[in-house]
Amino acid sequence: MSANRTMDYRSAGVDLERSELDKEGFKSLLGSTKDGLTLSDLGLFGGLYAVPPDVTDPVLVSSADGVGTKLKMAFRANEHGTVGQDLVNHCVNDILVQGARPLFFLDYLASSALEEGVAHEVVAGVAKACKENGCALLGGETAQMPDFYGVGEYDLAGFIVGIVPRSEILDPGRVQCGDLLIALPSSGLHTNGYSLARRILFEVGGLEIHDLVPGMEETVVSALLRIHRSYLPVLGPELRKGSVVALAHITGGGLPGNLPRSLPEGLGAEVQRESWEIPALFKALQELGAVEESEMYRVFNMGVGMVVVASRQEASLVLARLHDSGEDAWILGEVSEGSGVRFV
Amino acid sequence: MSANRTMDYRSAGVDLERSELDKEGFKSLLGSTKDGLTLSDLGLFGGLYAVPPDVTDPVLVSSADGVGTKLKMAFRANEHGTVGQDLVNHCVNDILVQGARPLFFLDYLASSALEEGVAHEVVAGVAKACKENGCALLGGETAQMPDFYGVGEYDLAGFIVGIVPRSEILDPGRVQCGDLLIALPSSGLHTNGYSLARRILFEVGGLEIHDLVPGMEETVVSALLRIHRSYLPVLGPELRKGSVVALAHITGGGLPGNLPRSLPEGLGAEVQRESWEIPALFKALQELGAVEESEMYRVFNMGVGMVVVASRQEASLVLARLHDSGEDAWILGEVSEGSGVRFV
Repeated sequence: MSANRTMDYRSAGVDLERSELDKEGFKSLLGSTKDGLTLSDLGLFGGLYAVPPDVTDPVLVSSADGVGTKLKMAFRANEHGTVGQDLVNHCVNDILVQGARPLFFLDYLASSALEEGVAHEVVAGVAKACKENGCALLGGETAQMPDFYGVGEYDLAGFIVGIVPRSEILDPGRVQCGDLLIALPSSGLHTNGYSLARRILFEVGGLEIHDLVPGMEETVVSALLRIHRSYLPVLGPELRKGSVVALAHITGGGLPGNLPRSLPEGLGAEVQRESWEIPALFKALQELGAVEESEMYRVFNMGVGMVVVASRQEASLVLARLHDSGEDAWILGEVSEGSGVRFV
Repeated sequence: MSANRTMDYRSAGVDLERSELDKEGFKSLLGSTKDGLTLSDLGLFGGLYAVPPDVTDPVLVSSADGVGTKLKMAFRANEHGTVGQDLVNHCVNDILVQGARPLFFLDYLASSALEEGVAHEVVAGVAKACKENGCALLGGETAQMPDFYGVGEYDLAGFIVGIVPRSEILDPGRVQCGDLLIALPSSGLHTNGYSLARRILFEVGGLEIHDLVPGMEETVVSALLRIHRSYLPVLGPELRKGSVVALAHITGGGLPGNLPRSLPEGLGAEVQRESWEIPALFKALQELGAVEESEMYRVFNMGVGMVVVASRQEASLVLARLHDSGEDAWILGEVSEGSGVRFV
């Protein structure tokens, strides 16, 4: 009982040379994101990053996330340069809501076998967003897993570490009844609700990726691949000013699932449904899929990507500064007695 | 053009209630790993961890990894409690080789749909190993991705952050010609070479998971699910003593791929092939698959899980202490002029 022919790793679906070539390509991508605190190059077992010496009582803030089934859109469109940006920006927002600025990022890219260049395109997107957010891409793992993923498919996850002085951690405990909620627009679905959106557009609607979304001047692929935006550039300055009491990143679970995460026990949110116009993409999804209103708000961000909680005194100043910086922000509602989100 | 029936997230394959239930279960697992520096509970957007105040000139060391196709063994055996331990221990070893001790860990668990309890079993394994390594499980992401993974299958990746005083970073630059290599035994395949091993055992060998491995008193499933061990308990004290010059974690690429990562330019390693008995599992794989010798050493760890580089003066003391602590360590070879690994 033995093999008729010699077995090797390549015959089992794992190409170590390819893996080495990929690594060489990643090195320059990582190098492009290095800053003065990055102490390592790719090739070491772990990435090295010095704790910034100028932060008083420093606290690390960390988050892990994936891109979810938005990846299926990248596969269909054969466009792999933006999903890495979705991932990094999502993670940046997740630690921003606790007051942290990003230090470094690591990615995990798993596939069975990819066409040459795809892994590089994905990681180039990760590196691009890292640079835009002032964050070092410190390392990552590219896993070849035969019989795990569909042909041409991959999964992509990421991990971010940021830092905040302990006294500047955004604490839901400081939110008070009557504080105002300021909404910042999302750029699209961000990275949530794609399983439902794809089913509605492709199966129910019978659309192709290059068809226009009903009621929009934009193709399905363009609308669905819009990059999850980072709120660091616009909110970083507000955090430094101390004008923000709390933040909520509107991801899976929508406004009802995420707003309460930034509020203390005993307080809820009153959201003025008429305070904004639901973007056309969400309207199209709701109509085409005959999705109930409450389900729409639970699955999608409905045009709200981030919510800033500010005191009544500060809110108008914050809003004015956001408008000055070109942000279409608006007063979404206010903090009220009770719990959860009440739409009024 | 609209849906005949109301569409919702559940009909698209995503179960938000299940996701909430999972989260509740994870909370107690995370809670069991908390230490005095863990400042957050699950439910926040990011996990909070204070930088230990007692580390001089602190450097963060971070690594991302997956379990690879060892996961397929967990699926076949329907045993999900050990892969999380593989993952954490692998990551702990990856930062240990740079002199770091772990602070915290985050996991990424992705699937299309899992039987109830499986996600909990996986994360319980992660939490168990975190506790064993004195590392907080700070958070993670559990992604439901319809149409991505096979039924009952999942991918599992993890991210670790550790810390080391800058002066104690293990630096390949300090390795000198003539330094000795001390090998520490692996517990099995660890997390590498599974695609080849599975093909050899199941396809070429026609074995079932409960059959004995040829030449062994152990079943295939038991041998292949042996947990990737953590070398922190045995090497942590050596690092504190300062008796270790460098370390190499023998993962994908085997001895030839990993030993050179701990050596400076201009130096290589001379490995005495007769210094250890190749464990029966590797012999069985080689024979059954008619795998070439060089390929075996490139794909598998061949019984060596970690290599310690120590000066000639220190090496015998290190070896004696390792033996005292019950470790079957041995002198594997030495650092020599040249590059790469030469088997002699």
